[in-house]
Amino acid sequence: MHKLNLAYLRMLNNMWDIEDQIQGGLPKLIKEAHNEDLKKGLASHLEETKSHKMRLEELFAFHSYSVNYERDMAFQTLLQDALADLSVIDDLNVKDALIAASAQVVEHIEIARYKTLLTWAQELGDEKGLEHIKSNLQEEEHESKTLFTLAQGGLFSLGLNEKAALTGDI
Amino acid sequence: MHKLNLAYLRMLNNMWDIEDQIQGGLPKLIKEAHNEDLKKGLASHLEETKSHKMRLEELFAFHSYSVNYERDMAFQTLLQDALADLSVIDDLNVKDALIAASAQVVEHIEIARYKTLLTWAQELGDEKGLEHIKSNLQEEEHESKTLFTLAQGGLFSLGLNEKAALTGDI
Repeated sequence: MHKLNLAYLRMLNNMWDIEDQIQGGLPKLIKEAHNEDLKKGLASHLEETKSHKMRLEELFAFHSYSVNYERDMAFQTLLQDALADLSVIDDLNVKDALIAASAQVVEHIEIARYKTLLTWAQELGDEKGLEHIKSNLQEEEHESKTLFTLAQGGLFSLGLNEKAALTGDI
Repeated sequence: MHKLNLAYLRMLNNMWDIEDQIQGGLPKLIKEAHNEDLKKGLASHLEETKSHKMRLEELFAFHSYSVNYERDMAFQTLLQDALADLSVIDDLNVKDALIAASAQVVEHIEIARYKTLLTWAQELGDEKGLEHIKSNLQEEEHESKTLFTLAQGGLFSLGLNEKAALTGDI
């Protein structure tokens, strides 16, 4: 475990696990979501997540690498905390805002890792890896933009009365 | 805990903890780093991290909010795993590549959360929050670019022989 190619395969393996955890966690977020556009966005990303795993599996097969089913505990805790936070919220708009926020953190973690993997695939001359990682990265970046547009677009807007109440509240 | 302002303060509190953990973790990464530009980049970001905490503390004081010293366990595990991964690597270039990769994930988590907080501060009309969150976000984005430039710039380049060896290795 002292060469870039081993670190590269290990990080690809970690990404497979992260995608697998997202596949397990997204249905719970979709169930908690109230806003229809948010629900739809997350549901379509669930389908993309399945294809991200398949692309990684194709890459492993190409490199004769066997997946190690080790769970990323930091990521598992992050997903569990996100769901626990939602369970104590009864305001549906705030719940949606929190779901979008958690999904955004997940997307950013994936984007950071896929960008690193892309740099390493270039460095290592892994053409197959470049192609597959780029496809996954593009879909994560697109999902991140969708979530940002939803959050910015005032889908979770509070009414003016609630804004006014803040003067005393915070 | 059912209004956006409470979720906002809770996430600001979480960011304070994350910045605090980074302040504790960065010196360990700097110590492990070999490349001088990487070392310098992380060291200057350590100073920025201290000012991010101070800006958040100013914001808490402004809103008469008391910080809750609850650790984000997902983030703590992420930092611990990053350091544990480094301890089994003896190749200095790969070590630097992994340090940059871990720092990049940390930056992306922060960017995602500060972007959400910025949207929420706008929604809540918190002018002071907008100003402080924007300052923190800009420095995180700048650090992320610096790390990306370092990773792309071939600072961790392998020699051609190592590339050739990959045909058999992966």
